[in-house]
Amino acid sequence: MVDIATRVYNHKWKIDPIVRSLLDTDFYKLLMCQSVFRNRPDTRVTFSLINRSAEVRLAELIDEGELREQLDHVRGLSLTRGESTWLRGNTFYGKRQMFRSDFMEFLEGMRLPAYHLTTRDGQFELTFEGRWPEVMLWEIPALTILMELRTRAVLRDLGRFELQVLYARAMTRLWEKIERLRELPDLRIADFGTRRRHGFLWQDWAVQAMMEGLGERFTGTSNCLIAMRRDIEAIGTNAHELPMVYAALADDDAALRRAPYEVLADWHEEHEGNLRIILPDTYGTQSFLDGAPDWLAGWTGMRIDSGDPVVGAETAIRWWQSRGEDPRGKLVIFSDGLDVDKIAELHARFHGRVKVSFGWGTLLTNDFRGLVQGDRLAPFSLVCKAAAADGRPTVKLSDNPAKATGPAEQIQRYKRVFGVGAQTHQPVLV
Amino acid sequence: MVDIATRVYNHKWKIDPIVRSLLDTDFYKLLMCQSVFRNRPDTRVTFSLINRSAEVRLAELIDEGELREQLDHVRGLSLTRGESTWLRGNTFYGKRQMFRSDFMEFLEGMRLPAYHLTTRDGQFELTFEGRWPEVMLWEIPALTILMELRTRAVLRDLGRFELQVLYARAMTRLWEKIERLRELPDLRIADFGTRRRHGFLWQDWAVQAMMEGLGERFTGTSNCLIAMRRDIEAIGTNAHELPMVYAALADDDAALRRAPYEVLADWHEEHEGNLRIILPDTYGTQSFLDGAPDWLAGWTGMRIDSGDPVVGAETAIRWWQSRGEDPRGKLVIFSDGLDVDKIAELHARFHGRVKVSFGWGTLLTNDFRGLVQGDRLAPFSLVCKAAAADGRPTVKLSDNPAKATGPAEQIQRYKRVFGVGAQTHQPVLV
Repeated sequence: MVDIATRVYNHKWKIDPIVRSLLDTDFYKLLMCQSVFRNRPDTRVTFSLINRSAEVRLAELIDEGELREQLDHVRGLSLTRGESTWLRGNTFYGKRQMFRSDFMEFLEGMRLPAYHLTTRDGQFELTFEGRWPEVMLWEIPALTILMELRTRAVLRDLGRFELQVLYARAMTRLWEKIERLRELPDLRIADFGTRRRHGFLWQDWAVQAMMEGLGERFTGTSNCLIAMRRDIEAIGTNAHELPMVYAALADDDAALRRAPYEVLADWHEEHEGNLRIILPDTYGTQSFLDGAPDWLAGWTGMRIDSGDPVVGAETAIRWWQSRGEDPRGKLVIFSDGLDVDKIAELHARFHGRVKVSFGWGTLLTNDFRGLVQGDRLAPFSLVCKAAAADGRPTVKLSDNPAKATGPAEQIQRYKRVFGVGAQTHQPVLV
Repeated sequence: MVDIATRVYNHKWKIDPIVRSLLDTDFYKLLMCQSVFRNRPDTRVTFSLINRSAEVRLAELIDEGELREQLDHVRGLSLTRGESTWLRGNTFYGKRQMFRSDFMEFLEGMRLPAYHLTTRDGQFELTFEGRWPEVMLWEIPALTILMELRTRAVLRDLGRFELQVLYARAMTRLWEKIERLRELPDLRIADFGTRRRHGFLWQDWAVQAMMEGLGERFTGTSNCLIAMRRDIEAIGTNAHELPMVYAALADDDAALRRAPYEVLADWHEEHEGNLRIILPDTYGTQSFLDGAPDWLAGWTGMRIDSGDPVVGAETAIRWWQSRGEDPRGKLVIFSDGLDVDKIAELHARFHGRVKVSFGWGTLLTNDFRGLVQGDRLAPFSLVCKAAAADGRPTVKLSDNPAKATGPAEQIQRYKRVFGVGAQTHQPVLV
């Protein structure tokens, strides 16, 4: 067990790479990457960093040279033999050889493409441009590097014992959350907290605490490196990135309307079972479900990632019923802004009505709220999104207008095409 | 910085000596040992372990074989060259060569004498018998071994992360105490917590936390090994053991009445300055001070170690005034059952009236109250006392009848000889 406080203390006097492996990324990025590598290998995509929390002035906290050093380090990484062996030989979601040989050969030779970094008004403008299956792998390292550089910047002024007590308090808080989760019968919960974690070692600690505290009820982690090292399940399916790029590539409104279903048709061919999880909210859940083909109702479950989660899950249940499916056999995965109270509430409401599962993110791996002066370690809302595909801007609506991204006139067009009406604004904490 | 939780976890699968150095003892034991080696080298003394907390059934918690292993290990220890160099070359209380060459030669050749161990009614009966300057050095190792074996026994059933969170909570608690102590102007406080510590590593952590948190206001530790390793002051003067043995050796009541002053007369010859600290309570503070020779009023200070500390310090102030001494130049050291509230209260009351100093013991190095189920880590009152000298029983009265030790008829005799009347009973927490 690494002494985290000591490691953080050492950050003050030597360079210490934040991302040390290409597997230090979310499992669904690799699944999506394989899908993209097969279906849209030559699409050129731009990813952009967006800090939704403008009050956290990252470029004033973090030295640009230090950021470049960390990003350059990741560009030098390639898959190691042991990592490749794990991806090729391991069983994921009960399936052997999840990753095809042609994809593994691509991944083994893959290096991350160049980045573009400037500073404006206290924020970094950081973009990545390249072939989709390569550039998409920047998302998680870019986020974790910025999150951890911010952590280091805040911790730089703390004394050695202040640091140790900081982690003591954070550990105590997390353990008390786990003790509360223990009380929920038949809980199924996974770590989804890579992207906005406090730091790598802290995520690794959190995962191990969940393993000990929850046993079988902890179903795994989205982080491939931690899954490999801790010998647990790697968890994840797909994300908004796929429909966003497919939609941007659509040549007219009719093609745009079909795009989200085309994503899932491609997915349907590749995957089965628990990997068939609908993410319905990219352009509004209700209209997506209303227009969905019947074969989608046969999928295993649905992930609720924006809007009021109760509304989202009730909508899913009604939709399954309307298509003649028994919701009790369906999996609902909640993954948006969860903490223990919300998990307990959703579990109480939906346990028994559907199979409930939770993807617990930022407040698992980065709950340092109130632990330093000025609350300068509080999590904040940093994302790295596909912003354009083959020169066309992407759009995301979701079920929460606060999470919408894209040019205003395109947002209006998408709302018209997908028939999205008034939406309820939800505060975005993380 | 050692990861304490890992170390404790490892205790489950390998033997790990608790006391690894003869310097892992209180500094005043070495000072007293030198005094005894000069003045009473051939007196034969018996030390006995006494567990004042009968509800903690040590022999049911701790395996007798494991206890023997630990005690045997200490018997194999001798002073290392580096330890000897430190004792010979270091400056203690501003004085070079505090330890005389003849004493150092004795100490370098010294091995701890045999022990006698039986079990009765859930408790260990553990005694040590030998020449006073040798057998007296058993006191601290015996106590720390039993305290830490008890800790290990309680922690044996905890999971790895439960352990880490346990220490996280204890660290947080201690740090919050230190933060409160920071607010006290001109505080002077030392670690006196060796004998009833949770464990060695924990004491070492506590000392380092005090160093960082209090800076110059933390004046040092009673533990020689930690003082050496952390390069801080070793603190301590003398204890009840000296008057108890001197008194036991007295041939009649008149000699008995003189015995406590003879101890200090011997001490007066050897030491000066801040080492001239009166410990007045062995047979009742009031009668001791009433009968004290005038040269004692010239000593630097007084240690208040039993009874109501406010009463004790007010008594000291009045006594100094009655002997024409200015109390503002005198040092009062509080060392009985302190915690932060009590320290703050005593500091507020006496700061400015005398020089105030604190010897913080068990609740610095062993405050795990309420941190495990059943409160099985709460500190308890274990002592190891000189029980007999040259075949005669020893007696201690102190200013608290709950702390009196010795045969009942001897206690009555001592009360009569020293004119001790009614005493106020104080609960003994630690």
